[in-house]
Amino acid sequence: MRISELSAASGVSIPTIKYYLREGLLPAGEQTSATSARYGEGHVRRLRLIRALLEVGRLPIASIGKVVAAVDDESLDLHHVLGVAQYALAPAVEPDTPDEEWTRARAEADTMITDLGWQIDPEAPARDELAQAVLTLGRLGIPADGEALRPYADVALRLVTEHEIGTIPFDGPREEAVEALVLGTVVHGRVLDIMRRLAHESVSARLLGS
Amino acid sequence: MRISELSAASGVSIPTIKYYLREGLLPAGEQTSATSARYGEGHVRRLRLIRALLEVGRLPIASIGKVVAAVDDESLDLHHVLGVAQYALAPAVEPDTPDEEWTRARAEADTMITDLGWQIDPEAPARDELAQAVLTLGRLGIPADGEALRPYADVALRLVTEHEIGTIPFDGPREEAVEALVLGTVVHGRVLDIMRRLAHESVSARLLGS
Repeated sequence: MRISELSAASGVSIPTIKYYLREGLLPAGEQTSATSARYGEGHVRRLRLIRALLEVGRLPIASIGKVVAAVDDESLDLHHVLGVAQYALAPAVEPDTPDEEWTRARAEADTMITDLGWQIDPEAPARDELAQAVLTLGRLGIPADGEALRPYADVALRLVTEHEIGTIPFDGPREEAVEALVLGTVVHGRVLDIMRRLAHESVSARLLGS
Repeated sequence: MRISELSAASGVSIPTIKYYLREGLLPAGEQTSATSARYGEGHVRRLRLIRALLEVGRLPIASIGKVVAAVDDESLDLHHVLGVAQYALAPAVEPDTPDEEWTRARAEADTMITDLGWQIDPEAPARDELAQAVLTLGRLGIPADGEALRPYADVALRLVTEHEIGTIPFDGPREEAVEALVLGTVVHGRVLDIMRRLAHESVSARLLGS
């Protein structure tokens, strides 16, 4: 298809498609003349992935470039491609000068993950995020050891294995698996957060409402 | 205590305390002379609440003003005070022109809440947030009806009733209940999100890792 048809098929404007081509997010089409090129279904899929990372994942263009490069790197297995996408989604944890308190919280987070028996990369940014949460809760006097946070881990694992992992198409093109992971992680995370706040309101109404 | 002692007791600098006094977030102390005033434990608690809303809740000063006004309004029962705090924490949902698709998603969200039997205010902003999530999932072809989202609601309710509501001190000063609600909502929400992403990584490593 021509660029105008690619635009119609994907809902992405021609100037935006040209921008993605210049940035290397979208591979060049097959050149058919000096001024025109032909595009295929792979381009439509790639545009969908870019839009999902941009609009749902709210990633900056530079991070999208890294995810797209991992999708295209055939030497990476799918777990690593998904990892690159997921790590790009992790919110930046404020750089802590690793003082004694931080080191202790980070060690506690690592122990928690070991005790869960989960397979997590030593460099996973979520280890730092968990350490920061442990630190914040501890400062507030809210219990944050492995026992206190265990229900959250159990619930999370159950949702992922029973409801989310099934929505990821592992057999299809890598784009589609990454897209489904990003959408699942972000949107299901949002749903869970909304439900928690609604449950808080309902429980509070029952206990305290007049 | 004097302002210098209040500063030491709360960890908040004197200029910041004076700023909160000017903005009406902190009630004036008992004037002891033309240039000095005496402060009490209530001021220490109020400063803790302000810092929690600011640093953990990341609320703007204007929203903190509304929460503090609700805490001070003795005519409001505790459920309403908690509601003001919780609604202030809700992320702004992009203003949708309420077209047909939005209206349908919002009706679906309302039906879901009714079917759950939860007591939720008709004006709760989380209703719009839920509608937006339903809309986003629907556009992506991910199931988002009451049945698909039920596990998220069940899990959320269980966490709130079994692990979170117990951390809120309903009997003490209103400040402390609001502070505990904000901290619980924000930090436990963050813990749950981190656990979900870690679980995704672990499950993906098992299924796909080499």
